[in-house]
Amino acid sequence: MSREIPYKIYLEEKEMPKQWYNVRADMKNKPAPLLNPATLKPMGYEDLRPVFCDDLIRQELDDTTPYIDIPQEILDFYKMYRPSPLVRAYCLEKKLDTPAKIYYKFEGNNTSGSHKLNSAIAQAYYAKKQGLKGVTTETGAGQWGTALSMACAYLELDCQVYMVKCSYEQKPFRREVMRTYGAKVTPSPSETTAVGRKILAEHPGTSGSLGCAISEAVEAATQQEGYRYVLGSVLNQVLLHQTVIGLETKAALDKYGIVPDMIIGCAGGGSNLGGLISPFMGEKLKGERDYRIIAVEPASCPSFTRGRFAYDFCDTGMVCPLAKMYTLGSGFIPSANHAGGLRYHGMSPVLSQLYHDGLMEAVSVEQTAVFEAAEQFARVEGILPAPESSHAIKVAIDEALKCKETGEEKTIVFGLTGTGYFDMYAYEKFNNGQMTDTIPTDEDLAKGFAGLPNVPEN
Amino acid sequence: MSREIPYKIYLEEKEMPKQWYNVRADMKNKPAPLLNPATLKPMGYEDLRPVFCDDLIRQELDDTTPYIDIPQEILDFYKMYRPSPLVRAYCLEKKLDTPAKIYYKFEGNNTSGSHKLNSAIAQAYYAKKQGLKGVTTETGAGQWGTALSMACAYLELDCQVYMVKCSYEQKPFRREVMRTYGAKVTPSPSETTAVGRKILAEHPGTSGSLGCAISEAVEAATQQEGYRYVLGSVLNQVLLHQTVIGLETKAALDKYGIVPDMIIGCAGGGSNLGGLISPFMGEKLKGERDYRIIAVEPASCPSFTRGRFAYDFCDTGMVCPLAKMYTLGSGFIPSANHAGGLRYHGMSPVLSQLYHDGLMEAVSVEQTAVFEAAEQFARVEGILPAPESSHAIKVAIDEALKCKETGEEKTIVFGLTGTGYFDMYAYEKFNNGQMTDTIPTDEDLAKGFAGLPNVPEN
Repeated sequence: MSREIPYKIYLEEKEMPKQWYNVRADMKNKPAPLLNPATLKPMGYEDLRPVFCDDLIRQELDDTTPYIDIPQEILDFYKMYRPSPLVRAYCLEKKLDTPAKIYYKFEGNNTSGSHKLNSAIAQAYYAKKQGLKGVTTETGAGQWGTALSMACAYLELDCQVYMVKCSYEQKPFRREVMRTYGAKVTPSPSETTAVGRKILAEHPGTSGSLGCAISEAVEAATQQEGYRYVLGSVLNQVLLHQTVIGLETKAALDKYGIVPDMIIGCAGGGSNLGGLISPFMGEKLKGERDYRIIAVEPASCPSFTRGRFAYDFCDTGMVCPLAKMYTLGSGFIPSANHAGGLRYHGMSPVLSQLYHDGLMEAVSVEQTAVFEAAEQFARVEGILPAPESSHAIKVAIDEALKCKETGEEKTIVFGLTGTGYFDMYAYEKFNNGQMTDTIPTDEDLAKGFAGLPNVPEN
Repeated sequence: MSREIPYKIYLEEKEMPKQWYNVRADMKNKPAPLLNPATLKPMGYEDLRPVFCDDLIRQELDDTTPYIDIPQEILDFYKMYRPSPLVRAYCLEKKLDTPAKIYYKFEGNNTSGSHKLNSAIAQAYYAKKQGLKGVTTETGAGQWGTALSMACAYLELDCQVYMVKCSYEQKPFRREVMRTYGAKVTPSPSETTAVGRKILAEHPGTSGSLGCAISEAVEAATQQEGYRYVLGSVLNQVLLHQTVIGLETKAALDKYGIVPDMIIGCAGGGSNLGGLISPFMGEKLKGERDYRIIAVEPASCPSFTRGRFAYDFCDTGMVCPLAKMYTLGSGFIPSANHAGGLRYHGMSPVLSQLYHDGLMEAVSVEQTAVFEAAEQFARVEGILPAPESSHAIKVAIDEALKCKETGEEKTIVFGLTGTGYFDMYAYEKFNNGQMTDTIPTDEDLAKGFAGLPNVPEN
């Protein structure tokens, strides 16, 4: 007989992970190295130093050390909002009338509203440790910028955020949260960088793009003494920091002797999904246990399910290194009507390799169905989920309903990465029945693929 | 030697309170009864039935039963977002360099963003139990309306919210959260009620007021078969439900052998403050222990510090019973430039009596200083506080700084009632240096007092 499971499993402070888990150490096929876009040679420590913080480059390049100590200062910060609860979705199970057991790891209970804070504090910490004055970054939907602002405020580090202009104007609340935390928020493209001025001259009145904001943030970092650039997803270091999610999840499950059948997460750049699944994937890689691992992506931006596994630019401005990943091409722009933050053209190289090796599945879902799932979830479980997170909810519900048909008592774990408080424009559209789905045609995708760089491996 | 205190003290599910504590049972001087505004006679059970739910009236009138069982269905709902953490503000202490020990009970980690959910689920539950179809209410800033929408969605009860028109227009996100939870949100004044039509005819283009919204919600409840009116503050029943805050706080403190010197809470209608302090006040009333208990109110709406203890209307529409309380007069309207939700002219009759009897203190603070405290708190403790909650933060910081001067290691507990995600307009004003303070003159107050009803006790 299993012990009665509480609604929310909270680890005690002393049970919190003290190390991050580096899944690359247990991968037989390592993710391909970053390449210099000019020379097509792998980029080493020295090549990356002008842009990234030293310790973070070491983490980026380290594919052999399985466990990396979390510095005490970061552990202390984690204690302010972690451990996050692993919630048993009793009410959702009842509503669906399913024999499945559903759990979700909820990362939204901090002011940034998402899991992004787990890596923001780590990156800010290493920047501070290196004696830097500040960091620069870009933000689209605003979750990453908010998280970084919070981390920098805590460490008294300067924080410069290039916010895509249309978000800057349409999400003034996000902007004001960042400003309250002392960040300097600049709408991108701006007059403050050469690349920004160039884009403004060529496209007056443009509302900006993530690619442009990245280019400005990188330039700002390299042009100021004592600054480096930081990024909230895709990179190996980010996945590493985010493994605190999966490690806590696994510790909480182990505490009650629960073994999941499947683990589900939404996938944009892959930071949340990679962090959640890493410890489980590690067991799978070592042949200790098997799990179904499912990445959920929007049908409007289907990197895994319809993309190519190839070297590509990480940014549309083409100033960043090339990464080998599932990609739609750096020139691919998902339909503007998509509400979520899962609009990135590429995917974490770690997850891309794992997917390529058949170690995980991927599925794409349309946004109207995603918001239907979000609404259903909110009404019974209380939490108003972010559109991104709701992609995972949708597939968790689908899997639970399959269990209802077959009578199987499967255990489903999914990642609830954040809250939707700053996404109410999208909810309003949904509430008014005005939400639509746009799926790229094969022609749309072909245009994106045509822009892939010419790398022999491609 | 005291045990090391974690950053966040979480009770286990089995340690959660199973009963609410009714502080009135231990009060020597009971709060005065509600009066019928026409007859000036105390209102009994039958008088209140057309407007309120039966079980809730019983709780409203019961001033002798010290403990009231929390029904299992409500306990189950509480488990979805409770226990809330009692947080040790280590980072704030360090920043202030104070020997004081600061704790806060954080009620913002649920989608409604505040403590209001504690009473919303209780009121919705009793309505459902009575076989009603739905409930009506008003909302100003929107926290109560959101909480009630969530509770009604969970219990599949119809929810009709009259939202003050200016909030409906200025806070579209709050409105959409309620709609996502299935509530019908009507801007007030509206054409849907007689009182709304009357006001619109007399004041075309009015942006509404809380008093008007209350009048519409009460009319809507009494004019529809199977509906009752519910309210988020002031009433005895609401304070009773909110004692779950204080009971959890006390249990968490007891677990670590911590005895606070002072307990601080913000005060609008009194629901959060009353809930937080009740168990401590109970000990004080019984002579078991002494605590300083401090209510913090805005200088722009100083019911305790500059109001009168008198019978007054609970609403500006004068359709509700008369309550004896500290009041600025139901016609008093605080300056529009005040950002927080603590704009109510009156105060809980229970707290009013306790204050009148010298069992608690009150202090008023100006909003610019409140936002300064909020910003300082956010940057070191991570959480972005609601403007209301920040009133308590301001005074907690003041008291901690006094300890720094005197070297006293006092233990301070304050209530952090909610988050400020939907208050970013106010933060923006503050960030831009455009926030101002308005303190009513004695003449302003005299106008409010002139409208007090003519009741012999006054």
